[in-house]
Amino acid sequence: MTLEKQNNQVFGDPSSFLPGVSIDCVVIGFDLCQLNILLLKLKGAELWSLPGGFVQIDEDMDRAASRILEDRTGIKLPYLKQFHTFGDLNRRDNNPDLASIPTMPKQFKDMLPLLEQRFISTGYLSLIDMRNSKPTPDRISESCDWVPLESVPDLIYDHNNIVLKALEQIRNQITYLPIGITLLPEKFTMKEYQILYEEILQKKLDRANFQKKMLKLAFLDRHEKQLTGGAHKAPYLYAFNKEKYNELLEKGIGYLT
Amino acid sequence: MTLEKQNNQVFGDPSSFLPGVSIDCVVIGFDLCQLNILLLKLKGAELWSLPGGFVQIDEDMDRAASRILEDRTGIKLPYLKQFHTFGDLNRRDNNPDLASIPTMPKQFKDMLPLLEQRFISTGYLSLIDMRNSKPTPDRISESCDWVPLESVPDLIYDHNNIVLKALEQIRNQITYLPIGITLLPEKFTMKEYQILYEEILQKKLDRANFQKKMLKLAFLDRHEKQLTGGAHKAPYLYAFNKEKYNELLEKGIGYLT
Repeated sequence: MTLEKQNNQVFGDPSSFLPGVSIDCVVIGFDLCQLNILLLKLKGAELWSLPGGFVQIDEDMDRAASRILEDRTGIKLPYLKQFHTFGDLNRRDNNPDLASIPTMPKQFKDMLPLLEQRFISTGYLSLIDMRNSKPTPDRISESCDWVPLESVPDLIYDHNNIVLKALEQIRNQITYLPIGITLLPEKFTMKEYQILYEEILQKKLDRANFQKKMLKLAFLDRHEKQLTGGAHKAPYLYAFNKEKYNELLEKGIGYLT
Repeated sequence: MTLEKQNNQVFGDPSSFLPGVSIDCVVIGFDLCQLNILLLKLKGAELWSLPGGFVQIDEDMDRAASRILEDRTGIKLPYLKQFHTFGDLNRRDNNPDLASIPTMPKQFKDMLPLLEQRFISTGYLSLIDMRNSKPTPDRISESCDWVPLESVPDLIYDHNNIVLKALEQIRNQITYLPIGITLLPEKFTMKEYQILYEEILQKKLDRANFQKKMLKLAFLDRHEKQLTGGAHKAPYLYAFNKEKYNELLEKGIGYLT
């Protein structure tokens, strides 16, 4: 997809978009050490935001989410999951005076009529193994980068709140659903898996207890040991058993089962 | 609240509403036997729908949900929980020709400009003990009734789909969260509690196993036996232990805890 094509889709005649409704994408990436989030920085201004945009008048919302993410960051994800719609009156109080930015790209300026009236925003979420992704900024953005969650700057509008809500939802979901298949490489150590949980829950977990619980759920297959210099310390590698993982994803891991 | 006041809020100058965004309320009630849903029937036409309406231009979405429910059904619920936003292009394909209804109330006719252009809808959900509620239809509706879930008629737009999605979410949530405190009277039998679960899960549960699991979670307090003629058959009454219930609601009942 050429840049021209991209910008024709995200930016354009305001009347080609559904007014009053935007989409913001929370894309969380894991690098085996920490969680990161995909953020855009506007050209010529210290303005950071989630990748977002408006829904075209002839486009399903779910389809718009993937299209907007791809157009703005170059990252193609077939499946983004809607998690919450943000409709507070004050959600745009942290609204920069976009019209006054001297270097405002023309494509963005064209969109001001849509941005200046009230709009709600539906948040979409995706969790990915970021090490294979190559974010590319769109024409109005100076950069498109992975930012560690602990270093997220002030974002425009209520985007910091959107990020918090997404993280809250992930934290809730891992209490009853398996997680990780989209965040981790095909094979990983139990330590790397535990770090993922610790990063999400924002607390340390007991190593032995964590391993015991995970193995009991039987959605991990154990593979050969990772080869290192000191063989006695080499950890086992694990992979998700897709069948069992999907089964747990379907029925949940709860007190009734 | 007078009817006049009600209708001034739900129906009115289309420019006083945010275009493109409506709210639909899924209110599920339990009568100790089965689950029911609150539906409205339009005056002078065989048109059934969820209680819904548009968000006022100067109103938070969450506040709009409670206001719309009260204005359209007379039922005041302080807390409706947002569960999903419906944004498919075809969601209004099952769109009746509202303008052609001869007996269309004027208040509804005024809203046609908002209804005739594309709008997405955010669904809000509440679960209540319906035996204390007195639904009252608004001015454009012939009736506002509790309808057993198994007898839900064809609804306008994608409202049947909105109902299905709400039920799917309830079914998912009871696998990891306690449920029932808003659906049941203060004291209830274990059998009544099991019926609630069976109605939600749409399957029979083993009596002994269900009781064992529920008591193990320790969010139910046992009270005196229900007085009946044959004392030996009188079942125990239970009540929710609010502290424990809320604690489980907060942290979830999952494999990590």
